[in-house]
Amino acid sequence: MSLDQEKQIAAKEAVKYIKSGMTVGLGTGSTAAHMVNELGKLVLNGLKIVGVPSSETTKKLATEKGIPLITLENASSIDVYIDGADEFDSYMQLIKGGGGALLREKILTYNSDLVIIIADSQKEVKRLGDFKLPVETIPFATQKIEKLLNKMGLQPKLRIKDGKNFITDEGNFILDLNIADITNIPALESNLKQIPGIVETGLFLDMADIIIVGKGETAITIKK
Amino acid sequence: MSLDQEKQIAAKEAVKYIKSGMTVGLGTGSTAAHMVNELGKLVLNGLKIVGVPSSETTKKLATEKGIPLITLENASSIDVYIDGADEFDSYMQLIKGGGGALLREKILTYNSDLVIIIADSQKEVKRLGDFKLPVETIPFATQKIEKLLNKMGLQPKLRIKDGKNFITDEGNFILDLNIADITNIPALESNLKQIPGIVETGLFLDMADIIIVGKGETAITIKK
Repeated sequence: MSLDQEKQIAAKEAVKYIKSGMTVGLGTGSTAAHMVNELGKLVLNGLKIVGVPSSETTKKLATEKGIPLITLENASSIDVYIDGADEFDSYMQLIKGGGGALLREKILTYNSDLVIIIADSQKEVKRLGDFKLPVETIPFATQKIEKLLNKMGLQPKLRIKDGKNFITDEGNFILDLNIADITNIPALESNLKQIPGIVETGLFLDMADIIIVGKGETAITIKK
Repeated sequence: MSLDQEKQIAAKEAVKYIKSGMTVGLGTGSTAAHMVNELGKLVLNGLKIVGVPSSETTKKLATEKGIPLITLENASSIDVYIDGADEFDSYMQLIKGGGGALLREKILTYNSDLVIIIADSQKEVKRLGDFKLPVETIPFATQKIEKLLNKMGLQPKLRIKDGKNFITDEGNFILDLNIADITNIPALESNLKQIPGIVETGLFLDMADIIIVGKGETAITIKK
């Protein structure tokens, strides 16, 4: 089985949690796209839900798939949020933000009653940090933050796309950090968030309720 | 003496710290405007400095006053930052952001070697919280944050200007919070900054090095 098939298997398993009447938060990225596809099929077959997209990209895809959408503002609550992750460890801690949508993803995660993470088998790691940690920064401050994070040994790299600075949906930049040598990750999260101009980090700590991993032809469900 | 005259007295005292060759961070608001005026006079008389403005408003004013400006990005460091405050207490802790420029102000404060706060005598309080605490929020999340802060007893009010949502230089909203009953203000700061979608708060804790207060006809200088 390819990684893409594993993503699809996980996505199919995840949408079983969705019942008619629910408000569903829709993640962003290649794994989440499978989930949007699967949900779209269910909606075609009569499932009555509304979605809250985490990015302009997902908004476009969900619209194409026929999923009715509302904004977070108009959602009284979000019953289930389903999204991918770039890494997860055995404590169900995550790195997200490879696709650059971490801010809205984290806002939706924080505001959802049940958070389901879907992933292929390669996303499981012993400890977080093989993947570079994305942090979203205010352009005005980004260069000074880069200097500071360099001093902290985090080797920040400004994310570039098509030869230009990558710009998030909120108009910010992304710095990708090397956290492979960091032992106290909750302390890192707290320290990063105290720096003026860092809007959000891709560390999703104690936020996932269920992780569904595609492994070969089966979906393995991990619960808190 | 009027409060406006007290502001001017404080501003005049503050600019005495500025020497030729310095990079000076320029605050925003009615008190900071006096400082920009005073600096402008000194520049006319030969003082060689460059300024880093904390808002579009200050950028415009400083340009009119003939102060050469650079961006934070192009400043290798900021020697002195001068700005007003909405409140300060006897521990030199501040509330800022009444003018809506708290994010860039906090970024400049954080990145400056010496931070001088100037104020009229009415800004001194026994404890912070007569003034409403501004927090800058991502529009996408603002309504959900408002609900949460309401549950926390902070009575958030979305800031309105000319009948519309007030928009910051970074395109965000401001919620003004009632913190009069909060006893542990450092804990509040830390808790607020953990909420996804809160970009920054107007609490400037342990950031001021010098506070200069206009009282009647004299300037009183308070140092750490």
